[in-house]
Amino acid sequence: MYDLVIRGGTVVDPGGTLRADVGIRGERIAAIGNDLAGERVIDAHGLLVIPGAVDPHVHLQMPLAGRVSTDTFASGTQAALCGGTTTVIDFVTPEPEQSMLDALAQRRQEADGVVAADYGLHMTVPTWHAADTPRLGEVSATVAAGCPTFKMYQAYAGMALDDAALYRAMTAVAGAGGRVVLHSETGPLLEELRRRALEAGHTEPIWHAATRPARLEASAIHRAAEIADVAGCPLYVFHVGAKESVEQVRRARQRGVAIHAETCPQYLLLSAGRHLGGPDGELFVCAPPLRNEADQDALWVALARGDVDVVSTDHCPWLRAEKRQADFTLIPGGLPSIEARLALVYYCGVGAGRLSLERWVEVCCSAPARLMGLAAKGRAAPGYDADLVLFDPARHVRIDTDTLHEAAGWTPYAGMEVTGWPRTVLLRGRVVVEDERLVVMDAGRFVARELAN
Amino acid sequence: MYDLVIRGGTVVDPGGTLRADVGIRGERIAAIGNDLAGERVIDAHGLLVIPGAVDPHVHLQMPLAGRVSTDTFASGTQAALCGGTTTVIDFVTPEPEQSMLDALAQRRQEADGVVAADYGLHMTVPTWHAADTPRLGEVSATVAAGCPTFKMYQAYAGMALDDAALYRAMTAVAGAGGRVVLHSETGPLLEELRRRALEAGHTEPIWHAATRPARLEASAIHRAAEIADVAGCPLYVFHVGAKESVEQVRRARQRGVAIHAETCPQYLLLSAGRHLGGPDGELFVCAPPLRNEADQDALWVALARGDVDVVSTDHCPWLRAEKRQADFTLIPGGLPSIEARLALVYYCGVGAGRLSLERWVEVCCSAPARLMGLAAKGRAAPGYDADLVLFDPARHVRIDTDTLHEAAGWTPYAGMEVTGWPRTVLLRGRVVVEDERLVVMDAGRFVARELAN
Amino acid sequence: MYDLVIRGGTVVDPGGTLRADVGIRGERIAAIGNDLAGERVIDAHGLLVIPGAVDPHVHLQMPLAGRVSTDTFASGTQAALCGGTTTVIDFVTPEPEQSMLDALAQRRQEADGVVAADYGLHMTVPTWHAADTPRLGEVSATVAAGCPTFKMYQAYAGMALDDAALYRAMTAVAGAGGRVVLHSETGPLLEELRRRALEAGHTEPIWHAATRPARLEASAIHRAAEIADVAGCPLYVFHVGAKESVEQVRRARQRGVAIHAETCPQYLLLSAGRHLGGPDGELFVCAPPLRNEADQDALWVALARGDVDVVSTDHCPWLRAEKRQADFTLIPGGLPSIEARLALVYYCGVGAGRLSLERWVEVCCSAPARLMGLAAKGRAAPGYDADLVLFDPARHVRIDTDTLHEAAGWTPYAGMEVTGWPRTVLLRGRVVVEDERLVVMDAGRFVARELAN
Amino acid sequence: MYDLVIRGGTVVDPGGTLRADVGIRGERIAAIGNDLAGERVIDAHGLLVIPGAVDPHVHLQMPLAGRVSTDTFASGTQAALCGGTTTVIDFVTPEPEQSMLDALAQRRQEADGVVAADYGLHMTVPTWHAADTPRLGEVSATVAAGCPTFKMYQAYAGMALDDAALYRAMTAVAGAGGRVVLHSETGPLLEELRRRALEAGHTEPIWHAATRPARLEASAIHRAAEIADVAGCPLYVFHVGAKESVEQVRRARQRGVAIHAETCPQYLLLSAGRHLGGPDGELFVCAPPLRNEADQDALWVALARGDVDVVSTDHCPWLRAEKRQADFTLIPGGLPSIEARLALVYYCGVGAGRLSLERWVEVCCSAPARLMGLAAKGRAAPGYDADLVLFDPARHVRIDTDTLHEAAGWTPYAGMEVTGWPRTVLLRGRVVVEDERLVVMDAGRFVARELAN
Repeated sequence: MYDLVIRGGTVVDPGGTLRADVGIRGERIAAIGNDLAGERVIDAHGLLVIPGAVDPHVHLQMPLAGRVSTDTFASGTQAALCGGTTTVIDFVTPEPEQSMLDALAQRRQEADGVVAADYGLHMTVPTWHAADTPRLGEVSATVAAGCPTFKMYQAYAGMALDDAALYRAMTAVAGAGGRVVLHSETGPLLEELRRRALEAGHTEPIWHAATRPARLEASAIHRAAEIADVAGCPLYVFHVGAKESVEQVRRARQRGVAIHAETCPQYLLLSAGRHLGGPDGELFVCAPPLRNEADQDALWVALARGDVDVVSTDHCPWLRAEKRQADFTLIPGGLPSIEARLALVYYCGVGAGRLSLERWVEVCCSAPARLMGLAAKGRAAPGYDADLVLFDPARHVRIDTDTLHEAAGWTPYAGMEVTGWPRTVLLRGRVVVEDERLVVMDAGRFVARELAN
Repeated sequence: MYDLVIRGGTVVDPGGTLRADVGIRGERIAAIGNDLAGERVIDAHGLLVIPGAVDPHVHLQMPLAGRVSTDTFASGTQAALCGGTTTVIDFVTPEPEQSMLDALAQRRQEADGVVAADYGLHMTVPTWHAADTPRLGEVSATVAAGCPTFKMYQAYAGMALDDAALYRAMTAVAGAGGRVVLHSETGPLLEELRRRALEAGHTEPIWHAATRPARLEASAIHRAAEIADVAGCPLYVFHVGAKESVEQVRRARQRGVAIHAETCPQYLLLSAGRHLGGPDGELFVCAPPLRNEADQDALWVALARGDVDVVSTDHCPWLRAEKRQADFTLIPGGLPSIEARLALVYYCGVGAGRLSLERWVEVCCSAPARLMGLAAKGRAAPGYDADLVLFDPARHVRIDTDTLHEAAGWTPYAGMEVTGWPRTVLLRGRVVVEDERLVVMDAGRFVARELAN
Repeated sequence: MYDLVIRGGTVVDPGGTLRADVGIRGERIAAIGNDLAGERVIDAHGLLVIPGAVDPHVHLQMPLAGRVSTDTFASGTQAALCGGTTTVIDFVTPEPEQSMLDALAQRRQEADGVVAADYGLHMTVPTWHAADTPRLGEVSATVAAGCPTFKMYQAYAGMALDDAALYRAMTAVAGAGGRVVLHSETGPLLEELRRRALEAGHTEPIWHAATRPARLEASAIHRAAEIADVAGCPLYVFHVGAKESVEQVRRARQRGVAIHAETCPQYLLLSAGRHLGGPDGELFVCAPPLRNEADQDALWVALARGDVDVVSTDHCPWLRAEKRQADFTLIPGGLPSIEARLALVYYCGVGAGRLSLERWVEVCCSAPARLMGLAAKGRAAPGYDADLVLFDPARHVRIDTDTLHEAAGWTPYAGMEVTGWPRTVLLRGRVVVEDERLVVMDAGRFVARELAN
Repeated sequence: MYDLVIRGGTVVDPGGTLRADVGIRGERIAAIGNDLAGERVIDAHGLLVIPGAVDPHVHLQMPLAGRVSTDTFASGTQAALCGGTTTVIDFVTPEPEQSMLDALAQRRQEADGVVAADYGLHMTVPTWHAADTPRLGEVSATVAAGCPTFKMYQAYAGMALDDAALYRAMTAVAGAGGRVVLHSETGPLLEELRRRALEAGHTEPIWHAATRPARLEASAIHRAAEIADVAGCPLYVFHVGAKESVEQVRRARQRGVAIHAETCPQYLLLSAGRHLGGPDGELFVCAPPLRNEADQDALWVALARGDVDVVSTDHCPWLRAEKRQADFTLIPGGLPSIEARLALVYYCGVGAGRLSLERWVEVCCSAPARLMGLAAKGRAAPGYDADLVLFDPARHVRIDTDTLHEAAGWTPYAGMEVTGWPRTVLLRGRVVVEDERLVVMDAGRFVARELAN
């Protein structure tokens, strides 16, 4: 007799798809089986039962140049839950004089108690910390505090690590058993290209893409992969959007480099020409920039074949007013998709015949959990947290701001009609979304992560 | 309350590894969970609990040029069970005037009632059938009879299909929803090379390899992949042993061709120079021939990355006396490994750090089941046949003819010491091997296969 | 004091471009230098002075299925001369019972005395000869008779050599120091595809392309390259038209295979969709078929980089009436371009910035001479035959049947306007075309060829 | 009647090889022809007559950290002439406050009047100049002064340009019609690796190679190629020594990047294990470091196929005493080979069957002249400078310090026996080396270079 049984659904796990019940005891899945009996039963006939999705790349209430990204820890995780994402990973960025642990504690104070979903934090290693040997010494304590992943940048003055700094920081992370998560672009050169474009009078949003050529993204990845390999550090490349980049990831893996990569819905579904070059171009500024249709095709194929491992969101919304700026270099970067990701990948991936059901679950749930050290997340299997999504594959939804719970007031996917949407969501055994209504908003908590070796 | 519970083991499935119990009702797995209660309980603490292995490529009591391969359906499947393989797929070859269904019925008569393990059959399409449109019309009925996989040869006079015949036969198989399993070598040219080698006085077994260059194997695969793609037919390449061949499979997949490939323990572990060129060289004649160490390395990497999907055996043993011939062209080809495969791949793969536990189960159990249409085989999951292996990862075994149940009287792996061996094996819920002793020998039956679409 | 000096031109040789005079004594170039004095002087200021072009692939008065290709040895070589081509290589095909030398003598009888340009002959090895060891023994005598290149087919019933026959014939050619020139397509399979298309009621010319997929051309090349390499035989692939084929040539070369390749104007300039699929589609039937624009781009790049070595014509014209047939399988294959080739490659290659001047001369003149063993042809250098073209880079020409000397009565390039055309042509020191008028029609002779080693 | 005729030799030019005479008038070649008559005649029967070799990468009397490289402009160019090299290109490095033209004038003062061979100068763009927009404005004047090639470094503190600086400088060079010649290594990271090796107590010369992994050289090239392409600047990569680097050059060229590359005798002939790791390891320190035998093989193949364009020397000799240092980071880098290059490439390239005669001349003479804008150098053709080498292919020479004219007092090739050596050398029509004796030492002069477009 289980506390709760999800009965009669189709359970999808990366290893395969089953008609089976899920038995839950307390916060955990206790069994997958036929004819399980429970104190309570939720009927899942006709539904897909999948592990709660994991979004390993979100920016909630992120301070940037005097602004703060639109979604708070509260609103962002509520939207996540409604979309079937039960765990997100956000970021901590220590100030120049601040220790990693202090920064972590401070960031946790912002989130604890208000998050609706479970969350973890990546530790950013800014320029100043990478240059400071004692600061790099804090890496081990940070890993021990449940943050085994370290964000590094090859772009953005103040954040960017040059090759030597990257190597030093990667070596420190490798020594502590961590993994690097990387924003990979050839930053300093992009600054130069942007400066020149402005000088030439180019201010339109499309110049955001024109000044960030795909080949320089790919080249940064090539270099980062080699440095990571020399440092012996596992590497996870954020938001790969160009086919040239996928190619470099693929080749690095062929050479035996321990490298993984994610992409995001915006790279799979939007294009520079149509969106950045469109009437609301400024809304679509994000970095790396949107690419084109051929890149989208290459990304879908790479996702299906395993050359790209994860779909995250890089969710980082700003208000329309904040996005409207005098020139493209002033526009805060980032797009929202924390809520629709799972459904978008289902509809455009599984629905369009590009991904199998299992691969959908792998890239949205299991792979991010595994790669980010969320040992109890990402599978519908005994012993795992009972984070579950009852996904209705037949539900038609017209995506729009009034149906989403995101705070930005706009969405790149407005008006898009999809088939397939989460109906009911459980977080550690508790129903938090019931028939598409958010019913519990305070169940989230910090998850200490630990990488498998 | 389950009929039987496997308690406390580590359950390995392609999707991941769990500490969990397995609950069995009748012939099927009913649940994977914690603290399951059963009428009977088998303790599996310290053991790996995996799906019964599937060997999709065996030749039992195979007639060849007046001889019959050494293992009978009885002895071969008994050895398979002892090694943890609960399902094998053998072959039917219709005579020139014989219909496919007649041939199937006749071959089933040889196996039914005597097999210790479950079995299926591939339907061979010989030269004569490929040339005969009515015969190709029997393909659909054969699929309906549970044989959806069709063996074709690009080599061996009498069996070999030339490009046009291959296309015709593949088109017929594609139309019936089947899959082609292919022996891919550039046959007619190999005959010429062999003839010339003999004329030049070369009779030693090493000439078997010298007259079958890897590049011609690779070229045959390239061609077959293109023909299959033009015909719209899914293709599974048997016994890939050369790195050039792996490369062609990989490239074809990059082009979008529906192609899969298997290798065998002999290609992973043995080499032309050392074995074919050794004192008992004749024992090591098989086709395609053994290659060298660089090929072995490439195969392991390809297995780990998914460029090769399956490890089968191509088990086809002959007595030492049968293998001893006047020249290399007269030696019946084939090596035994039906019993040791699972342990060899564990020890040399997982034990040597080349494969993950999950990938081991994938290549030996799940992938062959999935690719061959064994819908109820290949996973330790509810609803699947309770074919299970309790594999002791700490067991030391010295492989030798007196510890194996194979009938050939010799083994390529004689004297090899491995760690890890199946302790207990269940076939559809029934313990057939208990503490390494074969206790049930007549539980096997024919399995009608159906390919997923 | 030279017999004749070409004064003040720009001499283009594969090694570079010079402002220099060319001094001629008798039939040969005696010097390249400044201020040379001659009995006679031809002013070449403003003109490019290049070696006479070599077309290693023409079919003049070729018998095919009861018809004979339109241009005779006379008309074809006259057109060639007018276009700047001073040497062509045609074919001999021995009858089943005929020796190679007999066939050669007979074919020479047709040409000697009537050719306007110099000519050589490739010896075809038909199916019947390849199957006949004594016939293959004639290869050495054929090489000695000045025919060191042997045409083989992987397509066309009666002509096609299967893999073993190809190997046998290549081995014979390799042993005699010859080179194989190859029509590479997966013939027998194409027959099947054609048969099926007809059965399905597809008769239009575009089906000629649809039933000869590029990948099967590429696969035939892959195979032929491996067989040639095993046989130790240098290989020259005729009329490469698909980017997949170029890729296979490139990869084979990377592997170290002795392989070269040519393309033709039709593959560089025409496309299946526009021409085969157009109103006069039947005119554009040739094998391999026309491909598309992406293939054209790939071919130009490959020509520039040296991945394709030669532009020949495969000139094989038929009358409009002969081309008009009930279905695409009945149309005699071949297009005319013997006259315009040099100018087309200049205009669309050099003029469009795709080829350097030197590369133009290399692919149209020097490389075919070198690869085909025309030791005294293909360079504007002392000791070479004084076959020279004074090419006017500023001359505008509208290509049309009434400006060409070809006999077909139509040209694929009708109406095309090009800049650059041969003004004056010398054959072995003699002016045969003067200011675009053909003034000598009987100067041609057979050239015994000998391959450099 | 010519002033001088080189009679009866075998003239080798990239376009082919001829038996011909060379007629010289004044400083220039006036004709290549048969039976030329001259005031003076030099008999060249049995000799190869080739254009004077061009060494585009030498460091004569180069100041480095308080020392000056051993060969002066006088001794270095004398050695060059004796080895058949009639033109060298050295470097100018402007001081922080110095204009490019001042630095050029100053460097010319050191060389003019003392050089035995012709010479040109590359203009170095150090860190300070790349950061200074007015300094970059001097690029055009420098091009106009006959220095159209600009040396940049991705390594060495003080010299290294980061990505943005590289882009700025490349853009300036592109705008002025120049070409960048690049030392490509991932400099800042190498510094870090060197520091760590020292900290770990590794001082031996072999650590010079261990701290400069090939993959980081390759990655720097990948990046530089992309930056050059974005900047629209032709790029020539200096001293490529690793197969990974060749691969990056090759791939960049496939992508359409305007990139060329050179290698040097030390990378073709010496290896890290044997030489850097040997008893006199310190002598073999150069950057990039020596690699291994597999790299040598890859370089030879790349030279033959045109994936590497040039063999230069990077001649930069130091005395044994200067090379003997406390740790590998203190050793001045560089090896001598200015004299033996042409013979080494002949013997190990042509003699060993790895290069054709034409390719030998191409990589040692013609390609460097063409790529570096030496319009009158590099070919044995009318109008070119009469820089000629009469090379005796049968001459046996045992290379040693006492047979060479280099000043270092040691050579990496000591004791090596080669076949083939320059017998007589002409510089602009004047015999400067006669029967291996240097007879004219003051004929050299500065050559203003101009790139072809």
